[in-house]
Amino acid sequence: MAKKRNLYLKTIPVEEAREKYFTALESVLSVKLETIPVTESLDRITSTAIFARYSSPLFNASAMDGIAVTAEDTANASEVNPVILPEGSYQIVDTGDPIHPPYDAVIMAEDIVEVEEGVKIIASAAPWQHIRPIGEDIVSGEMILPSNHKIRPIDIGVLLSAGILEIEVIKRPEVAIFPTGTEIIEPEDDPEDGSIIESNSRMFENMVTVAGGIRHRFPPIIDNYEMIRDQVSAAVDTHDMVIVNAGSSAGTEDFTVHVLRELGEVIVHGVSIKPGKPVILAIVRGKPVIGLPGYPVSAYIGFENFVQPVLQMMGKRPEQLTETVEAAISKRLVSSLKHKEYVRVKVGKVGDKFVAAPLARGAGAAMSLVRADGFCVIEQTSEGVEAGEMVNIELYRSKDEIEHTAVIIGSHDLILDVMADIMPNEYPGMHVTSTHVGSMGGLMALRRGEAHLAPIHLLDEATGEYNVSYVKRMFKEPMALIKGVDRIQGIMVKKGNPLGINGIADLAKDGVRYVNRQRGAGTRVLFDYQLKQAGIQPEAIKGYDREMATHMAVAAAVASDSGDAGMGVLSAAQAMDLDFIPVGVEEYDFAIPQRFLDVPAVQAFIEILKSDGFHKKLEELGGYEVRNAGEIVEI
Amino acid sequence: MAKKRNLYLKTIPVEEAREKYFTALESVLSVKLETIPVTESLDRITSTAIFARYSSPLFNASAMDGIAVTAEDTANASEVNPVILPEGSYQIVDTGDPIHPPYDAVIMAEDIVEVEEGVKIIASAAPWQHIRPIGEDIVSGEMILPSNHKIRPIDIGVLLSAGILEIEVIKRPEVAIFPTGTEIIEPEDDPEDGSIIESNSRMFENMVTVAGGIRHRFPPIIDNYEMIRDQVSAAVDTHDMVIVNAGSSAGTEDFTVHVLRELGEVIVHGVSIKPGKPVILAIVRGKPVIGLPGYPVSAYIGFENFVQPVLQMMGKRPEQLTETVEAAISKRLVSSLKHKEYVRVKVGKVGDKFVAAPLARGAGAAMSLVRADGFCVIEQTSEGVEAGEMVNIELYRSKDEIEHTAVIIGSHDLILDVMADIMPNEYPGMHVTSTHVGSMGGLMALRRGEAHLAPIHLLDEATGEYNVSYVKRMFKEPMALIKGVDRIQGIMVKKGNPLGINGIADLAKDGVRYVNRQRGAGTRVLFDYQLKQAGIQPEAIKGYDREMATHMAVAAAVASDSGDAGMGVLSAAQAMDLDFIPVGVEEYDFAIPQRFLDVPAVQAFIEILKSDGFHKKLEELGGYEVRNAGEIVEI
Repeated sequence: MAKKRNLYLKTIPVEEAREKYFTALESVLSVKLETIPVTESLDRITSTAIFARYSSPLFNASAMDGIAVTAEDTANASEVNPVILPEGSYQIVDTGDPIHPPYDAVIMAEDIVEVEEGVKIIASAAPWQHIRPIGEDIVSGEMILPSNHKIRPIDIGVLLSAGILEIEVIKRPEVAIFPTGTEIIEPEDDPEDGSIIESNSRMFENMVTVAGGIRHRFPPIIDNYEMIRDQVSAAVDTHDMVIVNAGSSAGTEDFTVHVLRELGEVIVHGVSIKPGKPVILAIVRGKPVIGLPGYPVSAYIGFENFVQPVLQMMGKRPEQLTETVEAAISKRLVSSLKHKEYVRVKVGKVGDKFVAAPLARGAGAAMSLVRADGFCVIEQTSEGVEAGEMVNIELYRSKDEIEHTAVIIGSHDLILDVMADIMPNEYPGMHVTSTHVGSMGGLMALRRGEAHLAPIHLLDEATGEYNVSYVKRMFKEPMALIKGVDRIQGIMVKKGNPLGINGIADLAKDGVRYVNRQRGAGTRVLFDYQLKQAGIQPEAIKGYDREMATHMAVAAAVASDSGDAGMGVLSAAQAMDLDFIPVGVEEYDFAIPQRFLDVPAVQAFIEILKSDGFHKKLEELGGYEVRNAGEIVEI
Repeated sequence: MAKKRNLYLKTIPVEEAREKYFTALESVLSVKLETIPVTESLDRITSTAIFARYSSPLFNASAMDGIAVTAEDTANASEVNPVILPEGSYQIVDTGDPIHPPYDAVIMAEDIVEVEEGVKIIASAAPWQHIRPIGEDIVSGEMILPSNHKIRPIDIGVLLSAGILEIEVIKRPEVAIFPTGTEIIEPEDDPEDGSIIESNSRMFENMVTVAGGIRHRFPPIIDNYEMIRDQVSAAVDTHDMVIVNAGSSAGTEDFTVHVLRELGEVIVHGVSIKPGKPVILAIVRGKPVIGLPGYPVSAYIGFENFVQPVLQMMGKRPEQLTETVEAAISKRLVSSLKHKEYVRVKVGKVGDKFVAAPLARGAGAAMSLVRADGFCVIEQTSEGVEAGEMVNIELYRSKDEIEHTAVIIGSHDLILDVMADIMPNEYPGMHVTSTHVGSMGGLMALRRGEAHLAPIHLLDEATGEYNVSYVKRMFKEPMALIKGVDRIQGIMVKKGNPLGINGIADLAKDGVRYVNRQRGAGTRVLFDYQLKQAGIQPEAIKGYDREMATHMAVAAAVASDSGDAGMGVLSAAQAMDLDFIPVGVEEYDFAIPQRFLDVPAVQAFIEILKSDGFHKKLEELGGYEVRNAGEIVEI
């Protein structure tokens, strides 16, 4: 073999890695300070306590519109014994006007009567009444803000009122970000075979911003030891921290660890965390330099666990606490004792309990981070959790939002994305979340109480009827079907149909590579039914065992050079620019326990199904027919 | 009377005002869009759903380091029947490398043995094993983000991976802010008599930033009808919204409402809200123009209630939910049926309940907003709440922070500020909060279970001993004193002591204006004791009834032209540059129920009292002696 690989990584537990690194950093890291105008200080952190230079108000001030008087002059005034204050013995004042000796009280405008000689009053004024004394709000010398305080708009107002124009704050750490890799291209470049669009550094630079740092993203460096070394070395001198991505693993072209060993000290290489294992924690000339893995989810988790806390230390920013919720996990998660694992989950509230459904666990599944509502963290000491077990979820979305979400688990269709888009626009505060496990998977989730709705399209071979018999068979409680759409299923083939596929029978032809759906998917049920009708054995279909989880995934495989045909809906074929041979029309409906019919988010869902706006979107997508969408059929 | 006043404002309820205004705005307000680079889109709001342009991965990719093979070639390989793949029939691949036909499977590096002719394998490869299929993460055409989504760092990474370089987002509303008033000065100007430092506009511009708008703060305009009219009119054409501050009330120089009536339509003038009543909600040529009151707290509450929701509408930003907590209010709050009232409160957790202590209610008390942990909102339909009643508090600080705070209510001393500054630095996550109600007030709060600690300095006239007898008398449960500091009390007089005050007796001299502390304050107890010793009647002291709540407030009054002498501590006199005639040394200690001694924040508090760092700070302040700080005396 031509290529040479480093030894496999030996990892250490997350907490141990963190402690080792932070201990090493403590002796070298210095917090830098700078003085800035108060007007520009929003969200900055004070370095010392700040004391008022002026009092506020700056003088004794009238608290009312009225007249300033000398309290002694008003003694004994009453309704039966009114006192006349002659012109010159009082002063007209508006709220906020200064009060000077000899005046020491204010009488409200509505309590005086103008007379020829001056004003008449019918009650005596107590000394200092209706006067805001100097320093009532802020006394000069008083502490306004403690050190380590994050400055808010109100603080800026008060600081200026107290005569503070400039303050000393913690300097925001300057972070250099280096994408590396020969195969990576910039997003604006045209991808070639094997190209990977470099997007991690763009995610990092924004995570740096969120963590209070200043970002400096450099152009990608190819996998060249000297180039990486020289650029990283130069950046160490001009920045407070350096991030290198990726090359942090132990592959043939993973130079980062060697570069950092030459430049400084590698404290940790390899952490028992999944995803995110090949992390490098190094110190070069007193500056933290961190190598992060290339898979986007690993990169994200590596940043959150190691870069963010270092930025917090340097910027003296308070740790952001994550909201958590106790939820029942919807399926068994096996995890190794070799690592702490971050499993992305969708979270919903169904009935009176929260439910967490695990998403794709691959390190490359960046979209799963976008779709996730939170993380289920499985500690290294745990071998996993059983289905239904209560687990602690670190939330991304607010609990309130989750509580107003219709939870959908079942068969995938593009219209679910459309619904998710319409819902918060038409019904502010309401959301739709969907997880795609196929029709049977959806009904099973419904039975376990993990979803409000299960989208299904299950053909009863015996009756030719869709959906009803399956729901009847599987549930004892009163159920309903919310009618959805009729949709056209067919065979998706490459543009121009080069293999001349015109029906199910042609799929068994030599040289045709089929891409199938997973067991339990409505489309799989349909395909198996069609095969049986045509008298074809599954073994005759090349690729029968190659299972994809969604219409779009099948379409993508057919569009690539790895597949020739697959069954799916017209909208998926159109989205990927494929040809489409219709096979039949099926009913795509939503199974629901009747007790969920009055959940507000479900109500909104039904209204959208009936709406013109939704029907218009379906026309744009193509391949759907609407007959009775939103109708409720009790079962 | 020379000056003319407008009619008094007629107000309408907050919700009614909001509905009236928003309804009027709905028909004129338009949401503006703009297209920006994805790399610059952090925190922006998507205007439409965004669909992937590319799949990710872009190609079938190896998920492992190893070799790409044709699965068929490996059929039947086993330990007893190894298969040799000759050079040229496989390809060495790293993770992420593309896999092309004829290869359709990957075998991991650790499962192959290099031999002379090629590689030896001892297990067959299943088709598509260890291959990440094209579109595994993102399928082109798939929805990545819905509309109205606030963009996060991870979204930016995924958008770029999916080939999206630019996106359409909601334009951030441009907001013009006009400070007005003849008496206002810029913070950098030297204040003269009657000057008010203009700081509201600086608070507003940062509130605009936080609410997602773009700020344009204009220089102050004097109270001149034409100038205000012309500048506001010009700004309406070039901005999406205009804020005018202040002149929104009905005073002699309050032009704003007249200007807005001339330029457009005033929908609401005067809202039943306290503080914040004189709000003007207007529409000028289709743009929202809002007049806000001048008092800082009124300005803040007016902004939160009216400007912020309009900015949210224009920017399509989701409403920020405020964390709330149920807390027992520590004293009776009477509120009028004339308005909805926002009372600022300090919140603490004492024992197992949350307690809210009301702060200053004045509209000018901006510092109370800085010090507040939240608002107790008293609805217009309520006449107030009784002491001990459970109320809902809208929190500013996180509940977690509040749960780790030592709650101190009692006598004020500058060392409490010093403690509040040291605590979170030395004990991350721990805080001190203090409310100043005098020594007796503190003991009463302690008895009601509203505080952990009460700082007191109460002289027992009978024994000459400090603090112990008071605590003994007032509590049945086991109590302790945490020893604090010995501090010097004395008479504070103007610099140079122009009235020649040398002791208590001199305070009764003609022309001496005394500034007193409130009943129940330890300093008041001491003063009354000293008067009695000197045989002086309180009536002989001019200003005996003029009560201030803190040492610093007394010092500020003495430093101004409204007072000549007051009793207080040396540090306060020094902070305000006053002369100081020592009267005696007193013991300033912390009363505490023994059951709170092991509360973590209290433990930290005790450690700080004992620490060298704290003692050094005391030396800097001056006027303190440390003998046994942090010692616990059980009572």
